[in-house]
Formats: sequence, structure tokens, C-alpha cells
Amino acid sequence: MVEEGDEVVIRDETVLVSLMAANNEVGTIAPIEEIGRITSEEDVLFHTDAVQAIGYLELDVDELEIDLMSLSGHKIYGPKGVGALYVRYGSTHIEPLVHGGGHERGWRSGTLNTPGIVGLAKAIELAESERTERSKKVRGLRDRFWEGLDEELDEIYINGHPDDRLPNNLSVSFVGVDNQRLVGRLSDDGVYAATGSACSTMETKESHVLTGMLSDDDRIESSIRFGFGKDNTESEIEEAIEVVVNNVNRLRKFNDMM
Amino acid sequence: MVEEGDEVVIRDETVLVSLMAANNEVGTIAPIEEIGRITSEEDVLFHTDAVQAIGYLELDVDELEIDLMSLSGHKIYGPKGVGALYVRYGSTHIEPLVHGGGHERGWRSGTLNTPGIVGLAKAIELAESERTERSKKVRGLRDRFWEGLDEELDEIYINGHPDDRLPNNLSVSFVGVDNQRLVGRLSDDGVYAATGSACSTMETKESHVLTGMLSDDDRIESSIRFGFGKDNTESEIEEAIEVVVNNVNRLRKFNDMM
Repeated sequence: MVEEGDEVVIRDETVLVSLMAANNEVGTIAPIEEIGRITSEEDVLFHTDAVQAIGYLELDVDELEIDLMSLSGHKIYGPKGVGALYVRYGSTHIEPLVHGGGHERGWRSGTLNTPGIVGLAKAIELAESERTERSKKVRGLRDRFWEGLDEELDEIYINGHPDDRLPNNLSVSFVGVDNQRLVGRLSDDGVYAATGSACSTMETKESHVLTGMLSDDDRIESSIRFGFGKDNTESEIEEAIEVVVNNVNRLRKFNDMM
Repeated sequence: MVEEGDEVVIRDETVLVSLMAANNEVGTIAPIEEIGRITSEEDVLFHTDAVQAIGYLELDVDELEIDLMSLSGHKIYGPKGVGALYVRYGSTHIEPLVHGGGHERGWRSGTLNTPGIVGLAKAIELAESERTERSKKVRGLRDRFWEGLDEELDEIYINGHPDDRLPNNLSVSFVGVDNQRLVGRLSDDGVYAATGSACSTMETKESHVLTGMLSDDDRIESSIRFGFGKDNTESEIEEAIEVVVNNVNRLRKFNDMM
């Protein structure tokens, strides 16, 4: 929410505002509608990375006054390695990165990934028609997971916005527990979680999202991101709660012995 | 063939020689081995676009002293929209075009097209094991097609090198016939051919390959490229000969009446 008194930082030389519709690490949803209204009033282009959001939020580019929007297949049960960039007709000129035969009206030369494109289109169609149902199911599983952890464990915290968040994401800090170590233990027990973004799973440095949000090192270094999907089951969630609780307790006990 | 007396145009400031292993429009095979030897002696990087060639030529990057080689899936019965760039270890630094999560060791960020990559690898494996067989079959069909045209039609010419050419390609000039018109007629009769490269089928301007090779406008404007594949049959070839001969005769007759 943009609130009264918030500073609007659009300057004379600002040509573009670009932000994620929802954050990939903590699931916080950006106030797209208000930003779209402001950028439109200020006559500044508005781009949003909707890769994480498109499966769960209804993003009407006209209503939300979005000029450019990025999408990706693999976050909505579509093929990996294919995405799309929506560009509002007449809004701007995009300089191509890949030159050559002039495919896609010169925007991206090269023989097209036909199966990927068809798959992406179908995935978008399904995401659209099943959005409400998927959101409800995934939110239920995610909330039950949190409830289960919260019943059994002290000093755990949700990262990101408490309410304005995607239904499929849960970023949790388990204070006193090293997140790299916990992720390893969970993986051994069949629960796959991540410390940061999916792109940087091989990196050990701290998430810039969490360091930007949190001042407390304990919370940053003990934070884990869980993702939930439409094909997860209630029994998987109960099992995952048990695995996480056991491992957190074990790691905390180990810390106490040191 | 690089011949005695040919000028070698590598200068002090030359850092890279890049050329197609085989031309996409006329199928002429470049003297890769000799160029690899020269660039290696002159300590200049050598890149070859092997997209057209890889299905029919054995291109050993070590033997041929190739530093960089481009490949593509769709020319070797693999998936569309996926390719590969071979870079000799330690030969050069490639500046990425796409930045982001640091995938592919930072060379090309973005979630990978996994099905495409797996498909490309399998297609290369099959191209390798079936190369001799495919080449032989496709060359036989192509040669029979030319023979059939040559028996029935006067004033037709093969474009490109008479011998050093890919087995799957035939670029023919039908003197006196407008190639755009002929391509349209053939398409109506179920024979799909092209005037220029596949990327520029919507363009009507003349092929830069043919204008670079030929001085005779008649030959350029009457030139058509036929492609042959491993799944074509002898009876398809006989049918195609008939369709081409009939249409060329009809268009030439029409010209005579004007």
C-alpha cells in the first residue's frame, strides 16, 4: 500500500519504473495497482516482473495500467525455458538483444521454440481458469503448514508481508538454526526447501531480499523458503511439518550442547 | 579450397574469422579445414556456424582447429528454438547478452529450456550415428530430383559449388521464370520450396547470397531452393519432379504469350 506521506521518488529523468509484482523469496505482493496509477499519471513506463505472481494474481494490464510485463512458463506448470514479455502497443521501443533473421518482428531473432511457446500459452490458459481453485488449495496447505510449525516450535517468524503475500510461499526464520544446515537435513528427509532464490542455490551469501528487509542477522541466517504447489497433498504437509519440527529441534539441541 | 595465389586477408587487427561451415541457401561447403589451419597459424579465433552442416559433415573441433561452433536443433530433426555454442576451453571470453541469475556459469542467465536441451543432445547423438546413412539417402533423392528436372527442362542451372555441397540442398535457377510466382504455384501443388533463406520468406528482396555469387539477374530472380530430408521417399521425388516441370513449362509458356 502506498500511504499518505510516502515519498514518491519519480524524478524528471525517470523513464521507467520496474518491480516484481510479487517477490520470489518472501512472496510479498507489490501495490501494483497504485504504482500503475502513479506511473500513468506521471507518464512514466511501468514494467512488472509477474513471473511469481501470474499463477495466483489476476493481472489485467489495462486495469492496472501496466506497460510491460514479464512472464515465465515454469512457475505456472508450463515448460521450462520459455517466457514472454508483454509490451503495450505503441508504449515504447524495445532494442533487441538478439539480432539476425528478424523473427518475432525483429524483437528476437532466431528460430522459435515452438513447443515451449505452445506450452506456455496452454499453461497461461489453465492458470487463468484454475487460478481461484489453485490459490485456495495452496493457501490452505501453506497455512496448515505454518500452523503446524507454530504449534510445535518457538521463536519462528514469517518473513515478508503478513497478509499481502502469495498463497504458495512461506519464508520462515527459525531463530538459532543455520539455514544451510537445516536445508541439507530437510533434503535428506525428503523435504526440499531453499535458503534464497532458486537461481542462487549454489551461493552461500545472504539473500539481498532478506538483508534489505530485516535488520536482525539471526533472522536472516535462519531463514528458509518453502514453496507449495497444486499437486501437494495434506498428508505431505503433515509429514513435512514433522520433518521440519524434528530437524529444528535437533539442530537447536545441538547448538545448546556446544 | 584455398588455392595457391589466393589472398589471405587476415590483418594485424583481425581477432576472429567467422563463417558458415555450409551455406544455408546454396549448400556450398566452406574449406573449414584449411581456414582452421590458417587461423590457428595466425593465432586468430575461428568461429563456424555449423547449423546447416552438422547433420551431414563430420566436424571435429580439434582436428579442424575450430574455437567456436554454433549448432541448432531444428536442422537435425531436433526441437525448434534450441541451439548450442561450443567454446574451446580457455580460447576466449564471451560477454553474455542475457544477465540475471547466473545460470550456465553466467553465460546465459535464465531458467534453462530443459526439454529443448535434452532433445538437442539426443538429436546430435542420432545425427552422429546416422550421418552416413542419412547423407547417402538424401543425396540420392536430391540427385534424382535434379536428373529428373534436367531431363525435362532447358536452361536450368544449379547454384553453388557443383561438388563441395551439402547433400540435402538444391538451389536451381529456372531462367525466365519468376521465382516468387513459381514458389506459390508449387506450394498450391504440395511442393514446398523457398526463394531465399527460411528467415526471410516474407521478404521479397533478392537473396544476398545469390547476388553475391551471380552476376546474371535472370539466374537470381529465377532461383529456388529445394530441401531434402531423411523421411522423403522416392515416389515423393518423382511427384515433385512432375509438379516442378509442369509449373515451369506453364509459366514459361505464359511468358511467351505476353
